[in-house]
Amino acid sequence: MKAKYLNVKWQKSMRLRMDYNNMTDEFVGSKQGISAAEIRAKKDLAATAFSRVQEKRGTGMMGWTELPYNQKDVVADILATAKDIKKNFDYFVVLGIGGSALGPIAVMQALNHLHYNDLPKAKRKGPKFYVEDNVDPERMKALLDVIDVKKTMFNVITKSGSTSETMSQYLIVYDILKKELGDKAKDHIIATTSESKGNLIKLAKAEGFKTFYIPDGVGGRFSELCPVGLLPAAATGIDIKQMLAGAAFMDKLCKEKNYKKNPALMSAVLSYISMQKGKNISVMMPYADSLRYMSDWYCQLWAESLGKADDFNGNKVYAGQTPVKALGVTDQHSQVQLYREGPFDKVVTFLAVDDYRESVKIADGCKDIPDVNFLCGHTMNELIQAERVATEYALTVSQRLNRTIYLPEVNAFTVGELLYFYEMETAFCGEMLEIDTFNQPGVEAGKNATYALLGRKGYEQTKAEMESAKAKKEEFIC
Amino acid sequence: MKAKYLNVKWQKSMRLRMDYNNMTDEFVGSKQGISAAEIRAKKDLAATAFSRVQEKRGTGMMGWTELPYNQKDVVADILATAKDIKKNFDYFVVLGIGGSALGPIAVMQALNHLHYNDLPKAKRKGPKFYVEDNVDPERMKALLDVIDVKKTMFNVITKSGSTSETMSQYLIVYDILKKELGDKAKDHIIATTSESKGNLIKLAKAEGFKTFYIPDGVGGRFSELCPVGLLPAAATGIDIKQMLAGAAFMDKLCKEKNYKKNPALMSAVLSYISMQKGKNISVMMPYADSLRYMSDWYCQLWAESLGKADDFNGNKVYAGQTPVKALGVTDQHSQVQLYREGPFDKVVTFLAVDDYRESVKIADGCKDIPDVNFLCGHTMNELIQAERVATEYALTVSQRLNRTIYLPEVNAFTVGELLYFYEMETAFCGEMLEIDTFNQPGVEAGKNATYALLGRKGYEQTKAEMESAKAKKEEFIC
Repeated sequence: MKAKYLNVKWQKSMRLRMDYNNMTDEFVGSKQGISAAEIRAKKDLAATAFSRVQEKRGTGMMGWTELPYNQKDVVADILATAKDIKKNFDYFVVLGIGGSALGPIAVMQALNHLHYNDLPKAKRKGPKFYVEDNVDPERMKALLDVIDVKKTMFNVITKSGSTSETMSQYLIVYDILKKELGDKAKDHIIATTSESKGNLIKLAKAEGFKTFYIPDGVGGRFSELCPVGLLPAAATGIDIKQMLAGAAFMDKLCKEKNYKKNPALMSAVLSYISMQKGKNISVMMPYADSLRYMSDWYCQLWAESLGKADDFNGNKVYAGQTPVKALGVTDQHSQVQLYREGPFDKVVTFLAVDDYRESVKIADGCKDIPDVNFLCGHTMNELIQAERVATEYALTVSQRLNRTIYLPEVNAFTVGELLYFYEMETAFCGEMLEIDTFNQPGVEAGKNATYALLGRKGYEQTKAEMESAKAKKEEFIC
Repeated sequence: MKAKYLNVKWQKSMRLRMDYNNMTDEFVGSKQGISAAEIRAKKDLAATAFSRVQEKRGTGMMGWTELPYNQKDVVADILATAKDIKKNFDYFVVLGIGGSALGPIAVMQALNHLHYNDLPKAKRKGPKFYVEDNVDPERMKALLDVIDVKKTMFNVITKSGSTSETMSQYLIVYDILKKELGDKAKDHIIATTSESKGNLIKLAKAEGFKTFYIPDGVGGRFSELCPVGLLPAAATGIDIKQMLAGAAFMDKLCKEKNYKKNPALMSAVLSYISMQKGKNISVMMPYADSLRYMSDWYCQLWAESLGKADDFNGNKVYAGQTPVKALGVTDQHSQVQLYREGPFDKVVTFLAVDDYRESVKIADGCKDIPDVNFLCGHTMNELIQAERVATEYALTVSQRLNRTIYLPEVNAFTVGELLYFYEMETAFCGEMLEIDTFNQPGVEAGKNATYALLGRKGYEQTKAEMESAKAKKEEFIC
């Protein structure tokens, strides 16, 4: 039987659509809106960004463009491993942070039951699922209170094997496992890491852990479609082949040269122009609980990729747009007042879903209360859609730039599309800004300062500098 | 036995401290930093804001200032009700949105076990806890999959009783309860609402629901310390008397006239100056999982209170600062690259905790890997503190404005302090901006558009306008 996601007609019916009318002067007025002429003026810039991305595809730190195509054996290994995990473990815990955590969390929320861990075992497609992406001792202790390590598979994810947070967790967990299980401890760890360098691969070989590899050209925030994301997804029953098929489908759309027909390139052009217009904030507001953690994943991708002090030519540019996560309709009661009446400093991207996977009817009642009774007979589906369209309208009439990305439904294919769409938009936008999209030099200072504070050798000077800064602090405490 | 939180010495040991050295030119340089002269120049403005807030205390929409003092009987009723809930119910579900949800979620996360719902019943201090603050049909269905309505107490929270989202949920849930339980359905609903006006109080009286009241002068985002927040907290075993004692303690500090000694007033001065300097983003970054949803609560308070188009004099000011939630250390691997290298457009507020409630030692291991082995022997507590101080340092040397609010520990008293501190800062800052801190006119347009789309009578014109706008949309879809 041919899988549904391989059917071209079905794929087309699942294509994401971006409606950016409300970014234009025609809808939000000429003072804030983007004119057709402004868009046209970016034609050459878009063409340059496009050809640079095409040239770099699959090379350097753009290895992630090939993930939809080059993982046949890896996927087979992941599926076999996932089968084994589902059979033998009650808990699956990701030890990872940043790019090793945000993708797995986002995909889990999107594609599994919204109260997955609360379901009885028989109704779940896999073990209970936790992601430990912090080093808060209260949280670590809380996790250990609710899992049974003897029935837990830990997936340690770090490309370098030197991420302090993840490796601390690994040390703690492996110590407990060895005390509880002796020689069998190693069967409770899967390491997802670089094959060619770093600490974790050495450790994995020495201890005999099962391993999956993060390709060299795949950085943390571009890693969801490699084993970093695919193993946790598969372990909880998500169809990872469909995710990759969705990414491949989007990749095809993003190979279109004409920027007006290339969704990620067009999106990058709009983002670039809005930054030039002083919109330094980009809000992602999905109207679906299932997509709420997509915003966290996007926030890392956008912030860490585009937030750069230097451009290619060594100029100080302090580029970047601050991503903000919001949730429809929830944050209408929290943020929309500001979005409509505050500074004209943001672009809001709504994520809309054409068909929700459930339908709930609002029961009859409150006959004497017209304020409430008008809801009766409608579905929650109608209500959430009406609120989304209403919010879009309210922002637009207040001259606030917004656009909507429609997912026909939330499934593994469309989630694959969405992830890949944003990765591509980010790559295009980085080229337009003439910055290095794939590095993160700004996090080094903090790492070094941490090493200094924990007394690591070689960081004595940093420690001295920090102490002298601290000594000055007296006056401004309240 | 005298409660610990009534002891003055103990209270003083639990006082929050704000360190704002890294907001000043001395630490972040003269180009970005705030000078002592700039602070002094706001002395009169601060004095005016202070006296206006003092005048308005307890009146109009500032009824919330009295909540630490005027709820003796209410608290007794809440505690008795909570005792009953704990005895008779396995699930406690809040139906509410915005101010009726964000406070309960924040306090629950701060003061109960971090995996509370996953604990076995014997280890929990109350029923499982859910907050339904959206109208996504998939989420509603998911909730109904994991609770047993026959063992569930629903707390419907809406001041007006006409909040569409909450009342839809109420209609759905009450219909199910009546089908399952007949006449006993009413014993599964507690209504928290206005005593004097609105729909829900009428409904509650007609149906015979237990009720708690939201005082007239307490708006949604200032309601956590009234029954809106106190009942859910008490139902899960949180010491609400301590929360109120903490708020009262902070209130006392905020009655200090000298702005340099009044933490909320000083904080408002700094926020005001930073907005004037073009910092249109305010990041809250707690270094504690327990405080992560405090950021969501703060985001509503700050956005909805200060995001205003008009000032007192009818001038268009488009005031407001966009609040952003981040989590330490997690978001060091997501946002800090942008915070250090991107535009100079933000102020970061770290929430620090002196003493975590657990301590976890990092076990020995990885002897051959110095990159990792330096962690061994330290605690997670030391690691998270070092990372916080390191991040603060890294931002400071990059001339990024930041400040730190220290909680001696996370407990009901300090959480009460923190909530009240931010409410007071917001009130002071609103006065400085000369705007109405307590209204939200910007959400009306969206509500009306929703009514129009759902065919409510009287909204035909809005509907026609929306349809004509929609008809124009053709070109800009990709």
